[in-house]
Amino acid sequence: MITSLQNPAIKNIVKLSTKSKSRAEQQLFIVEGARELSLALGGSYEIEEVYLCRELFNQTRYPRVLDSIPNFSSHRIIDISREVFHKIAYRENSDGIVALAKPKARGLKDIGLSTNPFVIILESVEKPGNLGAVLRTADAAAADAVIVCDPRTDLYNPNVVRSSVGGLFSVQVALCSSVEASEWLQEHHIVSFAAELEAAEEYQNADFTGPSAIVMGTEAEGLTDFWLANAKKRIKIPMRGKIDSLNVSVSTAVLTFEAMRQRGF
Amino acid sequence: MITSLQNPAIKNIVKLSTKSKSRAEQQLFIVEGARELSLALGGSYEIEEVYLCRELFNQTRYPRVLDSIPNFSSHRIIDISREVFHKIAYRENSDGIVALAKPKARGLKDIGLSTNPFVIILESVEKPGNLGAVLRTADAAAADAVIVCDPRTDLYNPNVVRSSVGGLFSVQVALCSSVEASEWLQEHHIVSFAAELEAAEEYQNADFTGPSAIVMGTEAEGLTDFWLANAKKRIKIPMRGKIDSLNVSVSTAVLTFEAMRQRGF
Repeated sequence: MITSLQNPAIKNIVKLSTKSKSRAEQQLFIVEGARELSLALGGSYEIEEVYLCRELFNQTRYPRVLDSIPNFSSHRIIDISREVFHKIAYRENSDGIVALAKPKARGLKDIGLSTNPFVIILESVEKPGNLGAVLRTADAAAADAVIVCDPRTDLYNPNVVRSSVGGLFSVQVALCSSVEASEWLQEHHIVSFAAELEAAEEYQNADFTGPSAIVMGTEAEGLTDFWLANAKKRIKIPMRGKIDSLNVSVSTAVLTFEAMRQRGF
Repeated sequence: MITSLQNPAIKNIVKLSTKSKSRAEQQLFIVEGARELSLALGGSYEIEEVYLCRELFNQTRYPRVLDSIPNFSSHRIIDISREVFHKIAYRENSDGIVALAKPKARGLKDIGLSTNPFVIILESVEKPGNLGAVLRTADAAAADAVIVCDPRTDLYNPNVVRSSVGGLFSVQVALCSSVEASEWLQEHHIVSFAAELEAAEEYQNADFTGPSAIVMGTEAEGLTDFWLANAKKRIKIPMRGKIDSLNVSVSTAVLTFEAMRQRGF
């Protein structure tokens, strides 16, 4: 059992947790929590190692998760002390399990679409917590995919995993440039709706019943001119208060669930 | 100009920022940012002192905010260095202003209702970021009020102020027990809709066109038996994915904007 905070493996986990450069170099990222691990396994992510604090893991609501790791030899489960676990865990109330997983290639060509797709496009999203929240919403609404254009945050940042509650693994995600995404939408005859504060049309009057994509900008700056020029439609959420905008994960959810409502869920 | 991080006033601001006990004892809390301060002034909050880093404040988008402080003598504006400002600021890209404000009494009796009210009730909300996000949504949707029952977080936590983007000041907020809130709803003939995962009725089929309140539980545990028994209706948001719940600020927004859509905004 690892009990030392100075153990090189533990130090490396801290590095993977805090440095996107280390994640890229080692091609590894961190999955904390049994539920999240179970969703990662369901999403066919490869698991390299599992660090386990059995004292905490005894209370998990997902005790079978270890059995579901394919071809997983027991020597790759590494026992750690409670103190070590708290050093590497980033959540409160975590259930004693941290896994190292391999990132997957995420291109537009990997996306499989339903017959009447609904896609969420995020331009230049900055905050890992917002990206994670959108992934969680996309899972709940069974959106076909989330496409992240010109991202300014690492998809495998631990805060994305955490705030997505595993949606990162259950939702199809692609990373690409805005130009690529726009071409891909045209190719697939998907109507794009750019969300912006100044649009003439209110979202509840838009028709999301056909193949649709909503395109969301950053909180600070909104969408770039590229999307304002290239999206098929422009829509807004009416703002009736004193603050001129919503959190991007909130506005994404409002638009996504309106689309689902129109489609009969 | 204060340039020392050891200055007692600066140390006290750090205390007000991190300790709810200090906020309660001194009856002061922190408002960071010119936009937030301007909303606090609009909400008739009393401002005690303003700490100003002029170098950063020169770039604010709200340069007139200081002029709008009523009866505010100039000796209560305290200049601070950039280093000191960064010590007390909790946001990135902050615009050089931190004010100390007095909390207001927030009871049910202080709430003024429109003729056809829409109210958001949060039971035992724990995370300041979620409470703030709900306040921001309530502002955008022009909800009549947010009622926080049996709160587990301090309303004046800096993270509430920050994530509400000032919605804490522009929205009517009351703190009370669940029993009081439930009686108040009955008294005002407001129909309560308890949001839960197992309800039979999907929210899009509910009728929010009359006086309505949505009642939201904690993320970890949902609503208590009290609200499940005492709310007039029970509704759910259909979950079509692998994760069984939404972030509480997201589900609040989905329900709130559906209500507004039914009401024609």
